Amino acid sequence: MGKIDDLIANNAAYASSFELGALEPAPTLRVAVVACMDARLDPAKALGLNEGDAHVMRNAGGSITEDMLRSLAVSQWMLGTEEVVLVHHTGCGMEGLPEQAAAQRVQGESGTPLPFSLGAFDSAEDDLREGLRKVRDCPYLRSHQVRGFMYEVETGRVREVQA
Amino acid sequence: MGKIDDLIANNAAYASSFELGALEPAPTLRVAVVACMDARLDPAKALGLNEGDAHVMRNAGGSITEDMLRSLAVSQWMLGTEEVVLVHHTGCGMEGLPEQAAAQRVQGESGTPLPFSLGAFDSAEDDLREGLRKVRDCPYLRSHQVRGFMYEVETGRVREVQA
Repeated sequence: MGKIDDLIANNAAYASSFELGALEPAPTLRVAVVACMDARLDPAKALGLNEGDAHVMRNAGGSITEDMLRSLAVSQWMLGTEEVVLVHHTGCGMEGLPEQAAAQRVQGESGTPLPFSLGAFDSAEDDLREGLRKVRDCPYLRSHQVRGFMYEVETGRVREVQA
Repeated sequence: MGKIDDLIANNAAYASSFELGALEPAPTLRVAVVACMDARLDPAKALGLNEGDAHVMRNAGGSITEDMLRSLAVSQWMLGTEEVVLVHHTGCGMEGLPEQAAAQRVQGESGTPLPFSLGAFDSAEDDLREGLRKVRDCPYLRSHQVRGFMYEVETGRVREVQA
């Protein structure tokens, strides 16, 4: 696991000049971001977030799953966030992924069937709109203020998408 | 939603000097990071990750939920990652959260019962160890190479925890 040793060395450099030990747990901007896990997207850099500013949740696709709703509930009720930003992106691997063939490949190579859908979608923008609706309509969230963006991996720019 | 407008302005600055339009979707380090959503933790900064290097998944607590296993399956089978890094942290809001009282508060104020556990845990280190075991033992993941770290919000340093 040589790559991870490199990351630990990187961390030592980060910690050597660390001066943020007094940050509060509650995000100062009262914002929560739900974004795709994609390696090309760094939500903090792309949105100008500093340590302490915002919660950042991420999964494959950036879709609003139960785990993301759970995390948003914790974020809003326990730690006071009031606005939600959803970030999908161009060139997403979940867009157009052949769900059934992919699941069969995993089962064939691992010998174990996947106990869930991989969460592929036909259109990242449509999945983003579905996420916007889910957050707006979720009866157990405290705030339904949400906006959604497509991050363009080609340009680094975010483009707003309406629900 | 004035805060989000500020983030959009930040993004314009990021995009204005963007030169990463040719990055590949597969993470160059073949690493996936699963971390807590905590605002004080910037996994990319803390581990020295650049755009394109690694998948980053995050939720409340950094726990290995089904959504994180789904995301890891996509990361490993579809996009070739081979090592997993789990990051929990000191001072986590999920540690010692009174699950039942919190759920009652949400139901009382929103009028709707939560359809899931909030995912609180008694000990962040124990939950991290449980996550290490889940990744190691997951029959449908392709790689079980995983290491776990506590990120110290007081120092910026990561400290390895053995399963």
